[in-house]
Amino acid sequence: MTAGIETQRATITENLKAFQALKTDLFHKDFLLTWDHPEETIRAVVTLADTLKQLHKAGQSYRCFDTGLAISIFRDNSTRTRFSFASAANAMGLGLSDLDETKSQIAHGETVRETANMISFLTEVIGIRDDMFLGEGHTYMKEVGDALTDGTSQGVLHRRPSIVNLQCDVDHPTQSLADLAWLRQHFGSLENLKGKKIAMTWAYSPSYGKPLSVPQGIIGLMTRFGMDVRLAHPEGYGLIQDVVDMAGRQAQAAGGRFSVSNSMEEAFDGADIVYPKSWAPFQVMERRTEMLKNADKEGLRELEKECLANNARYQNWECTRAMMDRTSGKKALYMHCLPADITDVSCKAGEVSAEVFEQYRIPTYHEASYKPFVISALMFLTRIKDPGAKLEQIVRRAQSLSL
Amino acid sequence: MTAGIETQRATITENLKAFQALKTDLFHKDFLLTWDHPEETIRAVVTLADTLKQLHKAGQSYRCFDTGLAISIFRDNSTRTRFSFASAANAMGLGLSDLDETKSQIAHGETVRETANMISFLTEVIGIRDDMFLGEGHTYMKEVGDALTDGTSQGVLHRRPSIVNLQCDVDHPTQSLADLAWLRQHFGSLENLKGKKIAMTWAYSPSYGKPLSVPQGIIGLMTRFGMDVRLAHPEGYGLIQDVVDMAGRQAQAAGGRFSVSNSMEEAFDGADIVYPKSWAPFQVMERRTEMLKNADKEGLRELEKECLANNARYQNWECTRAMMDRTSGKKALYMHCLPADITDVSCKAGEVSAEVFEQYRIPTYHEASYKPFVISALMFLTRIKDPGAKLEQIVRRAQSLSL
Amino acid sequence: MTAGIETQRATITENLKAFQALKTDLFHKDFLLTWDHPEETIRAVVTLADTLKQLHKAGQSYRCFDTGLAISIFRDNSTRTRFSFASAANAMGLGLSDLDETKSQIAHGETVRETANMISFLTEVIGIRDDMFLGEGHTYMKEVGDALTDGTSQGVLHRRPSIVNLQCDVDHPTQSLADLAWLRQHFGSLENLKGKKIAMTWAYSPSYGKPLSVPQGIIGLMTRFGMDVRLAHPEGYGLIQDVVDMAGRQAQAAGGRFSVSNSMEEAFDGADIVYPKSWAPFQVMERRTEMLKNADKEGLRELEKECLANNARYQNWECTRAMMDRTSGKKALYMHCLPADITDVSCKAGEVSAEVFEQYRIPTYHEASYKPFVISALMFLTRIKDPGAKLEQIVRRAQSLSL
Repeated sequence: MTAGIETQRATITENLKAFQALKTDLFHKDFLLTWDHPEETIRAVVTLADTLKQLHKAGQSYRCFDTGLAISIFRDNSTRTRFSFASAANAMGLGLSDLDETKSQIAHGETVRETANMISFLTEVIGIRDDMFLGEGHTYMKEVGDALTDGTSQGVLHRRPSIVNLQCDVDHPTQSLADLAWLRQHFGSLENLKGKKIAMTWAYSPSYGKPLSVPQGIIGLMTRFGMDVRLAHPEGYGLIQDVVDMAGRQAQAAGGRFSVSNSMEEAFDGADIVYPKSWAPFQVMERRTEMLKNADKEGLRELEKECLANNARYQNWECTRAMMDRTSGKKALYMHCLPADITDVSCKAGEVSAEVFEQYRIPTYHEASYKPFVISALMFLTRIKDPGAKLEQIVRRAQSLSL
Repeated sequence: MTAGIETQRATITENLKAFQALKTDLFHKDFLLTWDHPEETIRAVVTLADTLKQLHKAGQSYRCFDTGLAISIFRDNSTRTRFSFASAANAMGLGLSDLDETKSQIAHGETVRETANMISFLTEVIGIRDDMFLGEGHTYMKEVGDALTDGTSQGVLHRRPSIVNLQCDVDHPTQSLADLAWLRQHFGSLENLKGKKIAMTWAYSPSYGKPLSVPQGIIGLMTRFGMDVRLAHPEGYGLIQDVVDMAGRQAQAAGGRFSVSNSMEEAFDGADIVYPKSWAPFQVMERRTEMLKNADKEGLRELEKECLANNARYQNWECTRAMMDRTSGKKALYMHCLPADITDVSCKAGEVSAEVFEQYRIPTYHEASYKPFVISALMFLTRIKDPGAKLEQIVRRAQSLSL
Repeated sequence: MTAGIETQRATITENLKAFQALKTDLFHKDFLLTWDHPEETIRAVVTLADTLKQLHKAGQSYRCFDTGLAISIFRDNSTRTRFSFASAANAMGLGLSDLDETKSQIAHGETVRETANMISFLTEVIGIRDDMFLGEGHTYMKEVGDALTDGTSQGVLHRRPSIVNLQCDVDHPTQSLADLAWLRQHFGSLENLKGKKIAMTWAYSPSYGKPLSVPQGIIGLMTRFGMDVRLAHPEGYGLIQDVVDMAGRQAQAAGGRFSVSNSMEEAFDGADIVYPKSWAPFQVMERRTEMLKNADKEGLRELEKECLANNARYQNWECTRAMMDRTSGKKALYMHCLPADITDVSCKAGEVSAEVFEQYRIPTYHEASYKPFVISALMFLTRIKDPGAKLEQIVRRAQSLSL
């Protein structure tokens, strides 16, 4: 499927040159929301991620550290991102340590500020996933960041570790950047994405509490590359308004388009890329956060019943063959962060039909395969003072070892 | 005890030469059941394991990887094998990551096929223990293997990771291979094992659900080296018939012997090696699997009572001093995969008397000490394209560093 | 605050020279209680820890191992020490593996002796925290040590791993040594500590079961450096008498002082350093241990009520501004192993007022920052045959890389 396009894909040397031409300013800083960083930085991340992936494919190490820790803090279950972070850290030469809050003394009065410093003495990177509570995750990461800045300025920490957002309530940058890196490879370049129509739509799911950060991450990133981004969802299933407004402004600035509708069909019509995925309405996530914090089990049960009943009204929001036939050439690229709710496979009625998912199963795996390299790229850019020189050193060494 | 025999043990250089003369075909393949591999491969595994052990003893690293992950999936409790896998991976230069199925999203609809790929992007080896459900473990490993082959052929995975079986319902190859490597060292060579009498017998234990894979692993491996393998157990405590039949065929082909009896005394008579160990009858494991899958707690309690009552009829199946006095020279080598149920130490009545176990305690530790090196050897053979050349490079470097 | 004093702090080269002049005898031994080691060894530990910290600050690796495991056994919750051990091991080049006793088979009859060997085949260091049961932790560590010695003498283990005490019922050496290393840097040298007055006092806390090992560790170490050590606590809140007696003897031998009183004011008067920290009376820990072992939930609840009621009589044992005003120049150095119970921050009434703690928050972080380097130093001294030569090699390499 990608044969002709792959010849357009940059070689390692071309990627290296392109990367060295891009300026970044991430040294010892955090990477929390993609829209807080200039476009050049985003280009640098995906270009570097692709280069590191090519190096790995060629069996060449891109290790940068002799020692040093990468710490993971997962406040929510995860398989993919947990292994992506572990793989990325190991490939960079960092040792992995997990802050398991059930084994720690955090419940016994340690403050976030203190813990952040206590785990950071020999730490280079801290990966955090905190997406269960609306209004909390991103705030927590900034609080940790402030603690690290404070500790470093006071000489307690020799180097300020960098935080990599592994998903918060607002954005899921490692996912959206992996998606962008995949599209860059699939369509040949970021320039080729200009004008491409991408449908980021809601889809039916038998579960009700999926986070907003994936669709918000997609509209928050793809609008920066001149794409025609179409957000679609049933009435009442909106995302955070500030993020939606920002997506519109970004699209305008990039010479692209951004629209919001209540029609899956409209979004799919003529689309080049479709990304149908379930999420809970913003207002539901607000109420759920409140109840989770109050341990209101009765309220949560009621909320779940109400939401599932509401979801059920939109069971037709499914990525079926008929839906795919509306897309450009009837063969838009189907994307999903996985795991998908597949009709008749993982559930009775889901986000996508079994037949459509099976057609695009391998492309979704290719999409996922970029995540560890994106995370390595973020580690690289936040910890290496001169990333261009370092990457050149790695590429030269790889080339000499291949002879 | 092993003084005279140790002089027959090959030096590192002799081991290296012997290893280089053996051909293997394991590159990027899995190692699930020992009997699926040619005899030459088995010889290569134990020869390499012994060499790596000698290198470690000499304080020399045999690291092969700069980066890369070794993933462990334990669907059952473990101390020994968990640490053996971790030690083996670390010695090879791989980082360890554990797939904790309680922390993952597997319960939320991820398929085995998807998970296998999602954890494999920068993974070299996957170690799996799945031995609780009869008919499940080996099947699961093959399913994972198929997923890895599929992902690699589709270009999703740059290199196909290799699966190492850390115990399934059928075989326990890292245990039986460690046992064979230990016997090779203890008796001086694999050739010296020809004609040696080994009693693989059932023994009484106050617990009822121990897996069949250890005795099956032993009869499935030792019959290939011309030994006189005597399987003994009370009536009704048989192993999987296919494995028993295969053991007989292997013994015939190797010029050895294989017999099955209901007499521990008969098996111990004149034996050079004894391996008394408890296991649950095949039929009991079948019923237990059914009930575990149906969460039939009442049925499991009844089954346990029934089995313990049946076991109790054979309390005399204990490795006592009187039993040991039947063996060759009254000093056969006692073996156990550990932990053993020791009469008056870990339980009231067990598999072995305290006095006999204490005499052979250190030999069982020597036996166990081969497991991490066997696992390193399996990693080496499945990931290194030219293992003979690589081992030579390591040995030469070790020798130059020792000067 | 430390500006003038820092000019007195030894450079890396001065630290190296000082370290090389000190003799140690820790090769392949354990480090359990500081008072079991000569003063020269203690000086070597803190001098080496400071050097390793300076190397890390300069961005230079002090890795000593290509491969090898560091195993952690935590029988109690921990954040700080868990990450300190992980950081320390990683910086030395060791891979970390945790013995999670819930995932192991220890409950199924494995003996301590067997487990110690089974996890040690490729292990260099074992870090153990076992402080919940009075009379148990130190005993357990010695039992593990004996098992390692036995296994090594029998040739089962190629090298005897070393145990590092990460806190037991008697001592907390990594904490007291980190405290000493911090004081050495803060005051410029160990010689400058002679005659310094340190108040190791009890303080009120709303929890009742904190271990004795921190105050015991402090009086057991600081009395060796000629300091004026003042232990103070309410009547009935004494430490283990043997440790108290030993502290007195050590103070006399070192030309310092050691006193015990029931007055926090008296201890604070003119003090240069204060270390107010809660602990449960020795007799309470004895009763608690008994009940914990018998799973006597009713008894534990009664004991807790009794203890909290007794503690409440001494709520005035709080490190307030008024208390600090009694110290030398009203600005003694406040120390705490963290986390502290801070009045109006982590609890209603605690060990220290919010205002005092905030003034010394950063110094307590500096104090904590020495722990990973102290642990690395203990690993270095127990695993490297010629530590002086090895450190020189590392420093030279660091200096050449900095050019």
